Amino acid sequence: MTTQTDGLMQDWALTADKILTSAAAQFPDTRIVVRREGGDIGRSNYAELEQNARRIAHALHNFGISGSDRVATLMWNNYHHLLTWYGVMGMGAVLHTLNPRLHSGQLAWIINDAKDRILVIEKGFTGLIGEIADKIPSVELILIATDDVDVAPIGNIPTKTLMEFAGGVSPDTVWGGFDENRAGSLCYTSGTTGNPKGVLYSHRSNFLHALVANQTNAFGLSAMDVVMPIVPMFHANAWGLPFIAPMAGAALVMPGSRLDGGSVLELIEQEGVTFTAGVPTVLQDVLRIITERGSAPETLRRIVIGGSAVSTDMVRAFDAFDIRVIHGWGMTEMSPLGAISMVLPDEAALGNEEKLARRCRQGRTVFGVEAKIVDEAGKVLPNDNKAAGALLVRGPAVVKRYFNHQKDAVDADGFFDTGDIAKIDEHGFIQLVDRSKDVIKSGGEWISSIALEDALCSHPSIRRAAALARSDEKWGERPIVILEVEDDDPLGTSDVIEHLRPLIPKWWLPDAVGFAQLPLGATGKIDKMKLRAMLDGSEGPELIPTVPVKKETA
Amino acid sequence: MTTQTDGLMQDWALTADKILTSAAAQFPDTRIVVRREGGDIGRSNYAELEQNARRIAHALHNFGISGSDRVATLMWNNYHHLLTWYGVMGMGAVLHTLNPRLHSGQLAWIINDAKDRILVIEKGFTGLIGEIADKIPSVELILIATDDVDVAPIGNIPTKTLMEFAGGVSPDTVWGGFDENRAGSLCYTSGTTGNPKGVLYSHRSNFLHALVANQTNAFGLSAMDVVMPIVPMFHANAWGLPFIAPMAGAALVMPGSRLDGGSVLELIEQEGVTFTAGVPTVLQDVLRIITERGSAPETLRRIVIGGSAVSTDMVRAFDAFDIRVIHGWGMTEMSPLGAISMVLPDEAALGNEEKLARRCRQGRTVFGVEAKIVDEAGKVLPNDNKAAGALLVRGPAVVKRYFNHQKDAVDADGFFDTGDIAKIDEHGFIQLVDRSKDVIKSGGEWISSIALEDALCSHPSIRRAAALARSDEKWGERPIVILEVEDDDPLGTSDVIEHLRPLIPKWWLPDAVGFAQLPLGATGKIDKMKLRAMLDGSEGPELIPTVPVKKETA
Repeated sequence: MTTQTDGLMQDWALTADKILTSAAAQFPDTRIVVRREGGDIGRSNYAELEQNARRIAHALHNFGISGSDRVATLMWNNYHHLLTWYGVMGMGAVLHTLNPRLHSGQLAWIINDAKDRILVIEKGFTGLIGEIADKIPSVELILIATDDVDVAPIGNIPTKTLMEFAGGVSPDTVWGGFDENRAGSLCYTSGTTGNPKGVLYSHRSNFLHALVANQTNAFGLSAMDVVMPIVPMFHANAWGLPFIAPMAGAALVMPGSRLDGGSVLELIEQEGVTFTAGVPTVLQDVLRIITERGSAPETLRRIVIGGSAVSTDMVRAFDAFDIRVIHGWGMTEMSPLGAISMVLPDEAALGNEEKLARRCRQGRTVFGVEAKIVDEAGKVLPNDNKAAGALLVRGPAVVKRYFNHQKDAVDADGFFDTGDIAKIDEHGFIQLVDRSKDVIKSGGEWISSIALEDALCSHPSIRRAAALARSDEKWGERPIVILEVEDDDPLGTSDVIEHLRPLIPKWWLPDAVGFAQLPLGATGKIDKMKLRAMLDGSEGPELIPTVPVKKETA
Repeated sequence: MTTQTDGLMQDWALTADKILTSAAAQFPDTRIVVRREGGDIGRSNYAELEQNARRIAHALHNFGISGSDRVATLMWNNYHHLLTWYGVMGMGAVLHTLNPRLHSGQLAWIINDAKDRILVIEKGFTGLIGEIADKIPSVELILIATDDVDVAPIGNIPTKTLMEFAGGVSPDTVWGGFDENRAGSLCYTSGTTGNPKGVLYSHRSNFLHALVANQTNAFGLSAMDVVMPIVPMFHANAWGLPFIAPMAGAALVMPGSRLDGGSVLELIEQEGVTFTAGVPTVLQDVLRIITERGSAPETLRRIVIGGSAVSTDMVRAFDAFDIRVIHGWGMTEMSPLGAISMVLPDEAALGNEEKLARRCRQGRTVFGVEAKIVDEAGKVLPNDNKAAGALLVRGPAVVKRYFNHQKDAVDADGFFDTGDIAKIDEHGFIQLVDRSKDVIKSGGEWISSIALEDALCSHPSIRRAAALARSDEKWGERPIVILEVEDDDPLGTSDVIEHLRPLIPKWWLPDAVGFAQLPLGATGKIDKMKLRAMLDGSEGPELIPTVPVKKETA
């Protein structure tokens, strides 16, 4: 047997069912606490979750769902979402998380691209789906997670309650037993260039991402932790936490739809949350409250903040309460964790400002993510915190090709271009300096400048439109738009807003509108760099504020 | 593309080269500190280690080593061992760690079974290899890790210094780029039944073991740690630490051959070690010294102890110095970590004795290890801390088949029988209660009772022999033997020892010899249970102490 080339260890596929089954065996009584739709608290544990997820798996199997079929969810972070998450993946189908913050037209586009066969929604989204029920022919059934006994069809699509669908079914069913390269979940990135793009995660990529993201250099969760994912499950897998928490035997606290600082804080204190993760907006609100009252939750030790930049003020303010803010960076295409502000042995020796500056960079890549910055010729640039280049990444949890695309999204060396421009310092801390595609990030969610411009240009009087980010204390960034209108065609800000309202989500509505002749580049496209310079200088148009729009949720 | 069954994420093989290359990129300056053979201290870092490991890889490639070829090492934990470890695995060949504590005859057997093409040894083992140089025909070259310029052939086998072999070679070479199921390393377990058995790890199994063993519930190492593996690299991969430390960016402190408590302690204090791991014997010696002087190393926080049972006294004594003893259990066949005394949220509420008892159990299985205890009919037994059964395990880093064996070592469900009899408590803590095969564990190393008995029976006057474990304060267990001799054939203890001396390692020599008619079981085999009862009662023979043998090293 001198030609024995392969190792002789066991075949053991890295599949999602094993994560939950392991938690049910090792941590059966560990808490899962959920803020339900009505605001009251529900309680379960990993043993129950596994049994009920198997029931969902069984019912899906009975319905005729099989490998590669997509089952979509439209839910906040709650128990039913976890159930569906594991029920769908556990039986080998694809769990597709939909973002309820999208405009119904975008939702329909995504559902059609994914050809979802079943939608699982919470009751509050019945109206949203009602708007598009006649435009999503692939959907054969809508399951509603509700305590109600009867539910009405939505449009012509039949509905059932989740309980009706799976409640009476045995948990003894198909569960795991497939290849780890099998597709496990699907998440669309609301891309900056045209249509959203689907990232089709494999069981392997999800599993390895969880193992890597939970190294002690990164999340480092253990059975001693109580974890609250504020970041939604439809937002890049809630950064892997629905996999990581059961893997580590950590208790899970799911905040449902109530993401205001007060509700989140109440749950943190009631349940002894030790670790939470979300975008800055919500956590800024939590910080405001604890600062006002002068006391922080006793158990809370770490907050991972991602989705947009973190301010040194925020880090410093949480430090004062002995709560460590850990800034992370990632993207849907990376499952999502790419980098995290890892603690290094030299940190104690750094000056305070230097330390804070480092901690507010996007962090060092986690083990299992290779990253480099390159110039326009593809030459690797040095890690000197000066050179800025396109940030390219490679790893087992990084996308190779988008769903339904015909070409790979990686270069000849297998690297994926993040679309970000970054610097890297001598210790490996990445700092994003620009986005290649001028996306606007509001409250941690992306607003596509191009989609916004397209909507504007559909108005007969608008010739050209440019959507730009303006920094905003509360939301990070908010969109403003500069319009070039047809000659002598009068157009007011309210006309613009009324035109946009049915076309885009409310929170995409621009905060200000300006009118100007837009500078064009060589290829006839709007030169945004020049436009920004005009706005910064004296040549820019007057920016007329629109009526402020309250964003429904963070 | 509705039939897209696989995910669309990147191919990224889990291979050992990536671990070191990642450390070289992310933690280039992180320390590797080594106690050299002369006792002085050598210093390097991950960037250098990677460059030099690539040189080894290149030189091996030039020599004609290729995939599936075995390169064996006979070394303590030092820099050259790390170099060879990654050099061999990085270029896709198989790194075979040999245990210098074995008797030369056993070493020869193992080298022949593995058909090692190259041996890399430290100078101190030249004599040991000299004894078998004419019995290991597969070995084409011996590389000696020494500062000497000239080295003489060993028997007819040519030798080179490691520097001569690889020092002048470029680091630009074949490095990774193969399948993760490729065999990466080989380690023989000094089995209790007949010949040693080789476990052929794959790159995948080593990689996943490292990710799993470094979850925060288990080792939880980070870039803030300074790690000293006291457990040798030839002993079940030093429990994965040569993979885990670079993965985590932890500094590595390698103690070389000086494993007495004083030398180990000196290095811990000089280098600020935070985490160490080894068998109880060495750490008992460290404990004795710090207890005598009344102070412990300031930086040391955690000690993982495995290889044999841990006493509550030891745990309590280290607790007093604010050093947490973490008991772990594993075996060569498990890469090796199986279970660890994980901290659970209820620990604070336990009474002191209850807490200590739990911490001295072998622990809960780590994520990625499925375990169950079964009765003789294969029925799963409850986790009630009462039922004892055969402990079976399954996972991605558990052996499927031994090297050169023709049959799998797993049952129809893919479970491997550990050969241990265990109980599991209601919280999942495993407690080993017996070894199926009556192995004797001295200083954390196994002594095969059967091999010892075979050696005894090769004496013409010995009819039957039984080797048993006797508990020993220093070594955990020591062998004693009971002999049934030919009628009227006088045999003294010194005759027995002189007969054994050339046949087995010195430290296998029994501490006492008794003479008796041995009780036989139904199948004609010695009934050891009955024999033990005889010895415990009044029917047993007198046990005559042999001349005490000093074990060379712990």
